[in-house]
Amino acid sequence: MIVDSSKAAVCLLSGGLDSATTLAIARHEGYDCHCISFAYGQRHTIELEAARRVADSLGATTHQIVNLDTTIFQGWSALTGGEDVPKDRDPREMEHDIPSTYVPARNLIFLSIAAGIAEGFGAREIYIGANAVDYSGYPDCRVEFLESFQTTMNLGTKAGVSGDTTRIHAPLVNLTKARIIEQGIALGVDYALTHSCYDPDDQGRACGRCDSCAIRRDGFKNAGVDDPTIYSPGAIP
Amino acid sequence: MIVDSSKAAVCLLSGGLDSATTLAIARHEGYDCHCISFAYGQRHTIELEAARRVADSLGATTHQIVNLDTTIFQGWSALTGGEDVPKDRDPREMEHDIPSTYVPARNLIFLSIAAGIAEGFGAREIYIGANAVDYSGYPDCRVEFLESFQTTMNLGTKAGVSGDTTRIHAPLVNLTKARIIEQGIALGVDYALTHSCYDPDDQGRACGRCDSCAIRRDGFKNAGVDDPTIYSPGAIP
Repeated sequence: MIVDSSKAAVCLLSGGLDSATTLAIARHEGYDCHCISFAYGQRHTIELEAARRVADSLGATTHQIVNLDTTIFQGWSALTGGEDVPKDRDPREMEHDIPSTYVPARNLIFLSIAAGIAEGFGAREIYIGANAVDYSGYPDCRVEFLESFQTTMNLGTKAGVSGDTTRIHAPLVNLTKARIIEQGIALGVDYALTHSCYDPDDQGRACGRCDSCAIRRDGFKNAGVDDPTIYSPGAIP
Repeated sequence: MIVDSSKAAVCLLSGGLDSATTLAIARHEGYDCHCISFAYGQRHTIELEAARRVADSLGATTHQIVNLDTTIFQGWSALTGGEDVPKDRDPREMEHDIPSTYVPARNLIFLSIAAGIAEGFGAREIYIGANAVDYSGYPDCRVEFLESFQTTMNLGTKAGVSGDTTRIHAPLVNLTKARIIEQGIALGVDYALTHSCYDPDDQGRACGRCDSCAIRRDGFKNAGVDDPTIYSPGAIP
């Protein structure tokens, strides 16, 4: 595939609210977006269907689902078959603990693979929907990590050492969930296409009680936007 | 699996000369070694058989072959199905160019996955056989990159931000190939078990003419050690 590298960006796309908004921003900034999603043994593989819908709806140039060997993460996170996904947590607890849904080195691995694919495509921009405000528990969603990763990537890749450096864009990193939703709405994101729940039922409906559901629901409420999420009958919306 | 994390190390093991020596060093330093090899679509998948032999012979605790989705690197390197592997190159050329066997972000990806697995196991030591002396062309084999990676990893992982930092060990990074071989011989490495050639024949014999063969052969010569490599009949040893 021939890519006009000056316009090409690689976008990490989980299928959730943040990455959908990030893709919309990258498209708005004029980039041809090559989206990457990861099948890594997550409970909520249904998010990959959401990623496909979001990529289509926002005019992604390509969308690649990378299959990660599930032995990498297996059993080491509540998201990958370890303990149960925590429910009904106190928001103050969310702010201070690294939750059991933390997946070891996930964004480090995802960004590293994005760096390889970007270098292959000749893209010099990588977008990630990392957000440190509403979910401060994950260390790999913080600015310090993302800046350091950019430095490391440019030291370890041919493009970087040739002076043609690659940039990490994390446009949501310091935004509240409500502000993210407002931006996305302004850019035409259809959040009904997205999936955030860590523990959906067998029909893909959101549990309404995991951290991801709680933060998403509060985001819609605080933004004054109708929540388009389809919840499981047992959920507490 | 229960691991005594104070003694556990994760070792990247390609099956080549450098990583075998690195594993021997880690074992000599007293670590229980959890080895990781990668099937990433490389031409020389036969190196994975060598990795298995080396792990066994040096008493690795575990050996995991991680299957990387071959779409990550496909066609973007002479090692993964792009152009032909270069042969008979001038050593001065090797010193100054990044060769076509460069694989975009390979060590960044390998180390990131090692970081995730190390965190899962509770290991705080990661060993890599990177070497910048005899093969200065790869940007991801240099000290600057490895140090920066260590910083990034500790900023982006639960262990790191909890103050329980993980270290990258690259004991060969500043050694010549001859010195590496001398160290390995002293530690009991059987180099007949290792595989370095980028372009082996269908019986797994070394071509003798790729950069990796040339550097390896010179290493044995300069160390005054018999070269145990089995070369293809067409090779120029």
